[in-house]
Amino acid sequence: MYACLCLLLLFFTTFAEATTYPPGGFHHLSSSLRQNKKKTSKSKSQLPFETHYFPQNLDHFSFRPESYKVFHQKYLINRRFWRKGGPIFVYTGNEGDIDWFASNTGFMSDIAPKFRALLVFIEHRFYGESTPFGKKSHKSAETLGYLNSQQALADYAILIRSLKQNLSSEASPVVVFGGSYGGMLAAWFRLKYPHIAIGALASSAPILHFDNIVPLTSFYDAISQDFKDASVNCFKVIKRSWEELDAVSDMKHGLPELSKKFRTCKGLHSQYSARDWLMGAFVYTAMVNYATAANFMAPLPGYPVEQMCKIIDRFPRGSSNLDRAFAAASLYYNYSGSEKCFELEQQTDDHGLDGWGWQACTEMVMPMSCSNQSMFPPYENDYEAFEEQCMSRYGVKPRPHWITTEFGGKRIETVLKRFGSNIIFSNGMQDPWSRGGVLKNISSSIIALVTKKGAHHADLRAATKGDPEWLKEQRRQEVEIIEKWISEYYRDLKEEE
Amino acid sequence: MYACLCLLLLFFTTFAEATTYPPGGFHHLSSSLRQNKKKTSKSKSQLPFETHYFPQNLDHFSFRPESYKVFHQKYLINRRFWRKGGPIFVYTGNEGDIDWFASNTGFMSDIAPKFRALLVFIEHRFYGESTPFGKKSHKSAETLGYLNSQQALADYAILIRSLKQNLSSEASPVVVFGGSYGGMLAAWFRLKYPHIAIGALASSAPILHFDNIVPLTSFYDAISQDFKDASVNCFKVIKRSWEELDAVSDMKHGLPELSKKFRTCKGLHSQYSARDWLMGAFVYTAMVNYATAANFMAPLPGYPVEQMCKIIDRFPRGSSNLDRAFAAASLYYNYSGSEKCFELEQQTDDHGLDGWGWQACTEMVMPMSCSNQSMFPPYENDYEAFEEQCMSRYGVKPRPHWITTEFGGKRIETVLKRFGSNIIFSNGMQDPWSRGGVLKNISSSIIALVTKKGAHHADLRAATKGDPEWLKEQRRQEVEIIEKWISEYYRDLKEEE
Repeated sequence: MYACLCLLLLFFTTFAEATTYPPGGFHHLSSSLRQNKKKTSKSKSQLPFETHYFPQNLDHFSFRPESYKVFHQKYLINRRFWRKGGPIFVYTGNEGDIDWFASNTGFMSDIAPKFRALLVFIEHRFYGESTPFGKKSHKSAETLGYLNSQQALADYAILIRSLKQNLSSEASPVVVFGGSYGGMLAAWFRLKYPHIAIGALASSAPILHFDNIVPLTSFYDAISQDFKDASVNCFKVIKRSWEELDAVSDMKHGLPELSKKFRTCKGLHSQYSARDWLMGAFVYTAMVNYATAANFMAPLPGYPVEQMCKIIDRFPRGSSNLDRAFAAASLYYNYSGSEKCFELEQQTDDHGLDGWGWQACTEMVMPMSCSNQSMFPPYENDYEAFEEQCMSRYGVKPRPHWITTEFGGKRIETVLKRFGSNIIFSNGMQDPWSRGGVLKNISSSIIALVTKKGAHHADLRAATKGDPEWLKEQRRQEVEIIEKWISEYYRDLKEEE
Repeated sequence: MYACLCLLLLFFTTFAEATTYPPGGFHHLSSSLRQNKKKTSKSKSQLPFETHYFPQNLDHFSFRPESYKVFHQKYLINRRFWRKGGPIFVYTGNEGDIDWFASNTGFMSDIAPKFRALLVFIEHRFYGESTPFGKKSHKSAETLGYLNSQQALADYAILIRSLKQNLSSEASPVVVFGGSYGGMLAAWFRLKYPHIAIGALASSAPILHFDNIVPLTSFYDAISQDFKDASVNCFKVIKRSWEELDAVSDMKHGLPELSKKFRTCKGLHSQYSARDWLMGAFVYTAMVNYATAANFMAPLPGYPVEQMCKIIDRFPRGSSNLDRAFAAASLYYNYSGSEKCFELEQQTDDHGLDGWGWQACTEMVMPMSCSNQSMFPPYENDYEAFEEQCMSRYGVKPRPHWITTEFGGKRIETVLKRFGSNIIFSNGMQDPWSRGGVLKNISSSIIALVTKKGAHHADLRAATKGDPEWLKEQRRQEVEIIEKWISEYYRDLKEEE
């Protein structure tokens, strides 16, 4: 699942100051994912899911009269493989339409027959159709205030408990799955609600990307490394392109010139739109650098980073670096070749993603920098500017230490070495988010499954013919571990009787 | 610590209908603890605590503008024994003034020198001085809405983290302690915030007293058993006294007669005040049936249940059962003999306890019944009547399944067998709350320490000369286990380096 953690990169600044440009106070989505709205696979999943809506309280952690306001949370169910009393596999939805995640998490459907499992995909509050205040949900901090991860986890706990009761399957073991932010939620759900889920597969879950646990530069450094690994020349070309971009912009008719160069549908209002658009292409392509052709963020060939670098490397010597970077980025935005022009500044949202900006401004504070070693324009994180942006956009201050206070993360190996169990943290090192993930085994049942080549929650995608051996092996291990959890659970259940 | 869980017994009904009399929709406190307001040991603890106030956000789980309202949470510190970097022992305050709990939790002060530990007692939000809306805090559901256990746990997490930072002792191991509701909080804190506390001593914590996990009759049955164990005759006398009470009340001048019999300062408005007053005495005396003289709920001699039964048994044959019950109850309300008359209907609160009624009506839903086998008037729990009372008092509905959804409890042995660590559940079987506690070891580090004779968190009280061997042994084991946690922690810390 992805896209959405991308949202971690806030999209404040299409028209903003250069000083606030940066990662950690970011954007892209406007120009990258959103550009692709007609193309990404929102298509109904292959499986026939039933759609349901669960009445959920607005606020689980306060008991004011308003807390009892009910909204309807969407969830999808597939019973085809289920044997009553058997396991229930729950996807803890992240920041978007749940259908989109369901159709991009084929792994769960692939393994359901083997486990005779019930499949459930729950939509995250304030995303997709699960908006407590309808169209006004994202209006202001008064309504958005109820959008956060703790409330979402409590939603899942309540819904799962009720569902099991309705199915008369209270003894069924529940395993939670999630990717990206959904993976963070899955891991946290196992930690906070061990009485509801017996285990969690948290794929590409950067739970350590908070509060300076990992270096602020790690995300953009990882992307740069991906491109360097594909081709050193490619890395250099991209690194040099930003200066050329600035130079063009600074010309007398810079913006019209830039608009022409970038084949924009409408004239650009800001040079930063062009920069963001380029960066978005490189960031997202690194994330979805899957081994086989896929259509999650955008339709792309297998190993698209290598393909981008091939485009760059094929240019004749002496070509403009900016032209090359544009051509490479076009792979991401126009793989099919059907786009006549590009919408760099148009904000549309076809995945129900709106809301992440709020989360990033309140709890999901993941500051980032770009080091001089990266291929991106250098940027020193400016927390005060970020805070100011959040204040001016939403009227509330971020709580930068809240996530590590509520969920931990610091010295996680020591804390979880003697506490907790049954979590798989899977990561592919080509995914820039992997740097904020758990990359080493913590205990005999809190396991890290790391692949050198994998991209953003590649393991959660449906198996395809061209899948490489290392990906098959990662999934095989996941199945084996989940089998162990479930058989242990049934053994414990028997002992109870 | 106690008193307060008593509050679990709501005090709705001093003037209420017989049909809503019952435990689980109860009262007492008005007439029992509150009667003793001038006598219980609120006196400053022996230790010189510094008093501090920590700026705390009103709502940690929503980000509305109002959530950021700051209130000042009181906490006490004693540094006398602390060696910087050494352990920090935190009492997770329950439903009352923190000074009161500090002065009744001498165990922590007793063991602090051995551990060279810092002592911290944190007051629970909405109790004592820690009232977010000042005198208006308990006005309505709009303000009380923010009073609940999850917010309290988050308060503790934030305060502890900040305190450690201010003391430049971020590597200090934190152990949390609590009794009664405070013990529930301590256990839940370890489960939800393992990254902040390395272990918890949860004394007399009835975390299973929810959602029908233990029989609804267990609490009153246990009290009855305590009295029966002291004297079968005593048990019978009390059991028969209720009918006599009803008979007197039903007389033509029943209430004045009853007022005379109960030596009330003012004429009674309801016979139920007399019943509640008697029940309160038996309930609280069973809870604080400590081996030595103590002054927690009221000044009392050692083993006060036996003393009460001696009073009853000493009456000449054929004496009125009601007179005997009254004489026994007077031990609780007037051990010093200085009371000229009793205030059965006066509601005063000297321990800052107000607020538990709210918690019991929202999250802390602990329904109770009185079986025919108990010595109390039989009562079948009536959930609908309870819900109605809560609605009419506060305008909100209870959430009876919330605590088990949020914190678990059902099939706790199986859930925690493979999850979590470092919790001691201590209980004394004479304490009626013990029946809702964890009474068997769950794993090698989630341990139950049970004594046959102990009363409500007897282990947390300061050691006294007359302490029996089994109590000393229970405390010795607690110290040994906590030592193990701490030395393991320091070993882990070294390995990290």
